[in-house]
Amino acid sequence: MKKVAVILSGCGVYDGSEIHEAVLTLLAIEQQGASYRCFAPNIEQHHVINHLTGEVSETESRNVLVESARIARGDVEDLAELRVDDYDVLIVPGGFGAAKNLCNFAIDADNYTINEQVLAAAQAFAKAEKPAGYMCIAPALLPLIYPQGIQGTIGTDTGTANLIAAKGLVHNDCQVADIVVDNAHKVVTTPAYMLATSMSEAAAGINKLVKSVLALS
Amino acid sequence: MKKVAVILSGCGVYDGSEIHEAVLTLLAIEQQGASYRCFAPNIEQHHVINHLTGEVSETESRNVLVESARIARGDVEDLAELRVDDYDVLIVPGGFGAAKNLCNFAIDADNYTINEQVLAAAQAFAKAEKPAGYMCIAPALLPLIYPQGIQGTIGTDTGTANLIAAKGLVHNDCQVADIVVDNAHKVVTTPAYMLATSMSEAAAGINKLVKSVLALS
Repeated sequence: MKKVAVILSGCGVYDGSEIHEAVLTLLAIEQQGASYRCFAPNIEQHHVINHLTGEVSETESRNVLVESARIARGDVEDLAELRVDDYDVLIVPGGFGAAKNLCNFAIDADNYTINEQVLAAAQAFAKAEKPAGYMCIAPALLPLIYPQGIQGTIGTDTGTANLIAAKGLVHNDCQVADIVVDNAHKVVTTPAYMLATSMSEAAAGINKLVKSVLALS
Repeated sequence: MKKVAVILSGCGVYDGSEIHEAVLTLLAIEQQGASYRCFAPNIEQHHVINHLTGEVSETESRNVLVESARIARGDVEDLAELRVDDYDVLIVPGGFGAAKNLCNFAIDADNYTINEQVLAAAQAFAKAEKPAGYMCIAPALLPLIYPQGIQGTIGTDTGTANLIAAKGLVHNDCQVADIVVDNAHKVVTTPAYMLATSMSEAAAGINKLVKSVLALS
C-alpha cells in the first residue's frame, strides 16, 4: 500500500488548511487504496481569522499543529518528525494557511519565504524523486522548493500567477476540474478552491490530482 | 432542487462538529442534486479541547457559530434565523459538539437537556413532517425532540445506547455502512464515527443517510 504524507497548515480556509480540500484529499487517498499520515509544523499561526466576520481576531493565537489535529481527528504528527523514507508521496492542500503559515506569500508576495521545516520536508521528496501534489494556493511554495522552470497552476488568476511566476514557477492556466502535471519533477497541481464554486468542483480536480500523483510513484 | 438545512456544532470532533462527517454530508447533499445551508447556535462552546493532546484548553473559549464558519467557509447562519418553511430536510452531523453544545448528553447523560434553539428548529421540522437525518452521537437529541418510541441508532455501543433509550429512543444496533429509518417520523440515523475506523466507512453510511432522507422529502 502506498503511503502519503499530507502537510496541513491549520484548520480553516482563511488562516489554515482549507477544510474541504483537506478532507477530500484524505478521502481520495483512501479511495485510491493508499494510506495517509498528516503532519503540520509546530508553530504559531500567522494570525487567527474569525471565519464568520472575516476579521482578524486580535486577542487570539493558535498553533498550526494543534489546529491541524482537528482535521486529523488528533492523528497528526509534528512536521519535524517527517521522514521521507517512510512515504511514497507528499500532498499539500491549500487554504490561506499554505500562504500564511507554510510560507508568507499572502503577507509579502514580492519577497516571500518558506518555513524551514516545510522546505526541508518538501525538498527531501524532490531530491528522492518522489512525487508531490500541491493544490489551490499551495503551488506558491513550488518555486522555493524546485528549480526555476517548475510547472504548475493556481487556476486562472493572472495577478496571483504572475507573482508566483516572478519566483520561478512556469504557470499554466487550468480549469477547476483539471490538473497540471510536471512529469520531469513529478509535481501535480490543481486549482481547487482558487476556482471552485462548489465542493463537487473542488473534488473533481482533487481526485484527479491524487490519482495522478499516486500513479507517478 | 431540494434544500437541506445542516446544523453544525463547532469545528472539531472533541468539542464541535466532526469535520469529516460534516464535509461528507455537504458533499453527499451536492452529489444527490440538492443544495444546503449551514446553521449553528450563536453560543459559547461547552469548552475547547486541544485536539493534539485531548486535554481541555482552560484558557480558551470559542463560539459555536464562529467555529462552525470554518467548516462552512464563512457561509453559515445563526440557528435563530432558520425558517423551516425554506427547507425540505434537516441534517445534524455528529462529533462531541452535538453532545456538548447542542445538548449536554456528554456532560450529564442521566439528566441531559437540549439547547432551546436546537429544539425549536428540530421540532419545527418534525411538526411539518419534514424528514431529518442524525448521525454519530447526534441521535442522542432525538428523544428530546420526538415522541417516546422514536427509532434510531448510535451504532452498537450498549452503554451509550441504554443511556439514550432511558430518555425514550428505541435503539436499533446498526453497522457503520448502514442506516436505521423510522418511516413514521421520517428520521434516518447512521453510526458514522461512532463505529467508523476510516473515512470511507463513515462515507458509506452518510451517503446512504443523505440519499434516504432526501427520498423521504
